Amino acid sequence: MPIFKLIIEYDGAGFSGWQTQPGRRTAQGALEDALAVLVRRPVRIQGASRTDAGVHAVGQVASFAFDGELDPARLAKSLSALCRPDLAVLAAKQAPDGFNARFDTTGKRYRYRVLNRPAPSPLCGRIAWHVTGALALDPMADAAARLIGSHDFGGFRAADCGRENTTRTLTAVRIGPGPMAGSIELAVEGDGFLKNMVRILAGTLVDVGLGRLPAGVVDEVLASGDRRRAGRTAPAHGLTLEAVFYETRRSAAESTCF
Amino acid sequence: MPIFKLIIEYDGAGFSGWQTQPGRRTAQGALEDALAVLVRRPVRIQGASRTDAGVHAVGQVASFAFDGELDPARLAKSLSALCRPDLAVLAAKQAPDGFNARFDTTGKRYRYRVLNRPAPSPLCGRIAWHVTGALALDPMADAAARLIGSHDFGGFRAADCGRENTTRTLTAVRIGPGPMAGSIELAVEGDGFLKNMVRILAGTLVDVGLGRLPAGVVDEVLASGDRRRAGRTAPAHGLTLEAVFYETRRSAAESTCF
Repeated sequence: MPIFKLIIEYDGAGFSGWQTQPGRRTAQGALEDALAVLVRRPVRIQGASRTDAGVHAVGQVASFAFDGELDPARLAKSLSALCRPDLAVLAAKQAPDGFNARFDTTGKRYRYRVLNRPAPSPLCGRIAWHVTGALALDPMADAAARLIGSHDFGGFRAADCGRENTTRTLTAVRIGPGPMAGSIELAVEGDGFLKNMVRILAGTLVDVGLGRLPAGVVDEVLASGDRRRAGRTAPAHGLTLEAVFYETRRSAAESTCF
Repeated sequence: MPIFKLIIEYDGAGFSGWQTQPGRRTAQGALEDALAVLVRRPVRIQGASRTDAGVHAVGQVASFAFDGELDPARLAKSLSALCRPDLAVLAAKQAPDGFNARFDTTGKRYRYRVLNRPAPSPLCGRIAWHVTGALALDPMADAAARLIGSHDFGGFRAADCGRENTTRTLTAVRIGPGPMAGSIELAVEGDGFLKNMVRILAGTLVDVGLGRLPAGVVDEVLASGDRRRAGRTAPAHGLTLEAVFYETRRSAAESTCF
């Protein structure tokens, strides 16, 4: 059966996350509802990342099987029109047989934005965590560097994360000033992520930047697997799923907002 | 009488522009209302730029005279709390005697953002004009370069602009890709701007980028002063007042969002 691949952007504020849940508006649910309107039957869509409630995406990837005629360009436009204004399909195309957006991923990149200044930001506050205490970037960069590589990230996940294997490989962890005045951005790229992992990493780095935790706390949490030693879970609205990778090369999902 | 200077950010979507108007919510009006709550009497605030309805600001500057005690740090915080979530006072300080945010400006910088891709952007659409036709950057840069210097900008202003002297000096006009995927940004710095001037410049450059007008149209409009030869007035929501300058050096209002 032909498989279609979608690249999706959404503002997480209006969604209870990616995954369909009864009685709640979710990104997957909104897309499935829109697709059902277009093709006049229910179709299950698989997403690469089950983003939490409030988390944004500029490069979510989804796929679905459909045994019928669909013009990809028209599909993207129609789905965007039905899901506007807070979800848009940036691109749609027919994928190779057997492609599955969720199970075929080889990596993902997330970006966490922190607005570090006394005043809130009316224009950027929706996509960045407002931290008023001054952050020291050097210890944050020190802590971030300790995350690179293959580690057991069991101490950096939500209590209800059900994964058995908690070893993940982070191929890139970058932290530095962002384009917003007073902003610090954390970009994390890896082969997979546990539940809340990027938000706990971001919260821990912020606690390091505020001087509440030493940079070495990262090694302690990686070694002990003890969530209680790590920092806070940073709020969802600072996080954006930026890109999803397939095979070894980067997919067309590579897209950056801001 | 002591003069206080404010640096202000606002999301233009919820305001009928900067200037106080009876029966409408404006940025100046919201600030004056908040200040009246704090000091228990009406105080007139002067803004550097009378931004149009829908135009954003990350570095608007305003001033007011007040014969009483005011702690600047607390003032910024209190005004932000009263004007949240779409207006914030980024900084407040006492200014030199006689300072007037409107009449003492020596320059301003505006940024116009265009999102140039087929799909709309749920995350960035609020601050960028969505242009779906492919823009050719080279002719736009050619047209932009013709704007630099002192010219009579009478052809690049709204019909109801009441200024007699229409000569302005643009010290910098930059156009290029922005940090949002598929975005093109126009940054314009000059000693002063006529009503709708940046929006008509942006609309004209977009018409040049779409091939509807040649780059030389800029010279024709500058020479003739004929508004009808220029391009469209670009929509307000793509425009942000970025910085206001005083004397020869740049003020603390220099602040960039995104």
